[in-house]
Amino acid sequence: MNKLNNWLNNEVTEVTQKLEKINQDSFFRDKTIGFAGKENVYKVLHNLRSALFPGVYEKYPIDESKVNILIGNNIRTAAIELSDLIEKVFINQCRIEERTAKGCSECKDKAVDITIQLIKKLPEIREILNTDIQAAYNGDPAARSHEEILLSYPAIEVISIYRLAHELYQMQAPLIPRIMTEYAHQITGIDIHPGAEIGEYFFIDHGTGVVIGETCTIGKNVKIYQGVTLGAKSFALDEHGNPIKGVKRHPDIEDNVIIYAGATILGGDTVIGHDSVIGGNVWLTQSVPPYSKVYNAQPSPIIKNDNI
Amino acid sequence: MNKLNNWLNNEVTEVTQKLEKINQDSFFRDKTIGFAGKENVYKVLHNLRSALFPGVYEKYPIDESKVNILIGNNIRTAAIELSDLIEKVFINQCRIEERTAKGCSECKDKAVDITIQLIKKLPEIREILNTDIQAAYNGDPAARSHEEILLSYPAIEVISIYRLAHELYQMQAPLIPRIMTEYAHQITGIDIHPGAEIGEYFFIDHGTGVVIGETCTIGKNVKIYQGVTLGAKSFALDEHGNPIKGVKRHPDIEDNVIIYAGATILGGDTVIGHDSVIGGNVWLTQSVPPYSKVYNAQPSPIIKNDNI
Amino acid sequence: MNKLNNWLNNEVTEVTQKLEKINQDSFFRDKTIGFAGKENVYKVLHNLRSALFPGVYEKYPIDESKVNILIGNNIRTAAIELSDLIEKVFINQCRIEERTAKGCSECKDKAVDITIQLIKKLPEIREILNTDIQAAYNGDPAARSHEEILLSYPAIEVISIYRLAHELYQMQAPLIPRIMTEYAHQITGIDIHPGAEIGEYFFIDHGTGVVIGETCTIGKNVKIYQGVTLGAKSFALDEHGNPIKGVKRHPDIEDNVIIYAGATILGGDTVIGHDSVIGGNVWLTQSVPPYSKVYNAQPSPIIKNDNI
Repeated sequence: MNKLNNWLNNEVTEVTQKLEKINQDSFFRDKTIGFAGKENVYKVLHNLRSALFPGVYEKYPIDESKVNILIGNNIRTAAIELSDLIEKVFINQCRIEERTAKGCSECKDKAVDITIQLIKKLPEIREILNTDIQAAYNGDPAARSHEEILLSYPAIEVISIYRLAHELYQMQAPLIPRIMTEYAHQITGIDIHPGAEIGEYFFIDHGTGVVIGETCTIGKNVKIYQGVTLGAKSFALDEHGNPIKGVKRHPDIEDNVIIYAGATILGGDTVIGHDSVIGGNVWLTQSVPPYSKVYNAQPSPIIKNDNI
Repeated sequence: MNKLNNWLNNEVTEVTQKLEKINQDSFFRDKTIGFAGKENVYKVLHNLRSALFPGVYEKYPIDESKVNILIGNNIRTAAIELSDLIEKVFINQCRIEERTAKGCSECKDKAVDITIQLIKKLPEIREILNTDIQAAYNGDPAARSHEEILLSYPAIEVISIYRLAHELYQMQAPLIPRIMTEYAHQITGIDIHPGAEIGEYFFIDHGTGVVIGETCTIGKNVKIYQGVTLGAKSFALDEHGNPIKGVKRHPDIEDNVIIYAGATILGGDTVIGHDSVIGGNVWLTQSVPPYSKVYNAQPSPIIKNDNI
Repeated sequence: MNKLNNWLNNEVTEVTQKLEKINQDSFFRDKTIGFAGKENVYKVLHNLRSALFPGVYEKYPIDESKVNILIGNNIRTAAIELSDLIEKVFINQCRIEERTAKGCSECKDKAVDITIQLIKKLPEIREILNTDIQAAYNGDPAARSHEEILLSYPAIEVISIYRLAHELYQMQAPLIPRIMTEYAHQITGIDIHPGAEIGEYFFIDHGTGVVIGETCTIGKNVKIYQGVTLGAKSFALDEHGNPIKGVKRHPDIEDNVIIYAGATILGGDTVIGHDSVIGGNVWLTQSVPPYSKVYNAQPSPIIKNDNI
């Protein structure tokens, strides 16, 4: 390894300096220094979900008589870390907007308030997650028990993370909600933007490839299958040709709707009326009234068979 | 951090108590206490797969002369942990059905027997996995070596886990097979229910979005591409409107069938005859005889071009 | 646990011997012994990406004044480990082709050279990745900041790994590039073969289910959505019925093309002319000229509604 070591000793400094300079010159205003990336957000999620569902995410068996200690510790750890992370992203936002110096007390106050609000909401979030677990049990003939859903369904992974991230999104904590839902995307293949609004008794079966956009609203008791897109039809551009941020561009799904695998529903004006059923692979860019049944005129496949 | 610490000191107990109460009141009969969640199942999988393919899943290089020790240790560790986990889920099942108290010896005996049967079957499972690796090599022009398939193909990840989980499913170990295949789903985007029956020389290329349902049967030498669904057409409901569990509702795929990307084959009565080819994006809810070639009447896309 | 322990003490040796024999007899010429599997490749990726984007992948906050040390250390660690891994796969390749004994100095020299070339290229790779981040910001109305893209977009995960792996692929390092891109596939659901050639300002939105084949070429400023396949139409077989490796079989996508979700473009002769737009779910096996707009004649879905 002599040649390599020699080269490293002589040349690494130059490569390092180039990389450091690109990093400093790039458009990343905070260069994410001091942020410690995404790993800390993942740790907060782990602690929050261990508080919501004690025993599910632990690496070692837990003692039934000490569940309250486990929940309490997870809440404390999550709260302190989360408050710190939110403060950092607020300070960074201040720096970008050149409003104030590092360490402004307003950033800390806002971070603490948001953290406390989230912790207070945990019991309510757990109650809603129980409805999601019930919806999975009701909606899947393969589900044998509620435990099976909690321990093995990607739907519960993604919904538990989404419901936490959505609270933070609503309180306008920047960046962290998106890191949370992208973590969920990573482990489930289900991409829910934290800005979407989703009612109780929500179930996604299988789920890989599902995309639910930022300005989507979904009512109660909605069931979605793998590969469904609730997306944008097109989006408005500003005078520089850049997309305008924050415009309503994803559909509204009312209560008791079922959307089968591979269906695509697009557009901010599109409303799927309550109690409707959208068939597999349907492509829909218009509203349908309540109680609709929408199916593809499936092209009859051509079946050739020389041996018959 | 004073405000947050004060709040935590004063209020965490109340949030904790609420969460603990919801947890106790919820429909999770065992509350997964003592189960230690999914992490232990993942560890068992790691040990079993390290025994099947020594060197592939290790964090550090292994010594060729000590492979037998590595295999033996992995089997021992996996067996003891797995037996313990199966016992726990059996005991929990007994508690739910209120048949007996914690620690019944029958649960332990069944768990030990299932574990021993699985360990005995490992050589046979490895032989079948070798056929799956061969099928990948034969089926993908991009594959340069068998090592490449073993070290980088998601097909081998998901099939090795599925074949272990399927053995446990057949021996009626509850819950654990599903946690195993959902772990495979997480890392590959391929969702195979452990109840499906799949013959040797099975290959899934790319694989993201594939769904293979619980009551599906697949013959030998079948090749499947990304986004294929082998699913249910609809499912029967009982008098309460809940799906009836355990009914045959997914298709049968006979030997030597190729199913291209995005195809959807639905229904418990649907049989794809041997040596058939199902084209990309085909939607099929009926049986086809052996040697069929099924293609979509692909709609000619509309090509507009103002600049020509 | 007595019964299990007894059985293990008596029978594990036999199972172990069977497994070891299958492993030795199998077609894996190196049996991956000494390779330590995929985990070391993942570690190299971690170090390389930490050098490219300091602070993003760290587990703990980093000190702004010590970024250069962090970058330098990551480069050194990555280089030494990578050189060692490449040498091992070269030696294994020699052994398979029976050209030489273990430890040939040519293998080491080639491994060191490839490693040095990759390290030298890191600044250039970072510059190109900056264009990819810019493309994501321009292309997604939901993106609020460049930091958000760097910290949460799967596109950046997969492209940063692909661009590293592609350099190694071009320098003909075997096996390791594929392990790298399959790791990216695992965490993003996006399957890019390291052999594909992809220009700057590349963006994949959402991305789950995307497949980009080995012989694909993609120009500058191309945007792709989830579920897009750039694949093979069919592939040639040799006289034994096995696919011929290395033939051009995937399409060429020219500059400034947008490909919407679920589109499938197949074939080594297929060229998508620059500035074209390919609509959602389009199935395309022919070339289209520059500035084309290609849409499906979407079948009007059938909407039934008994309540109106």
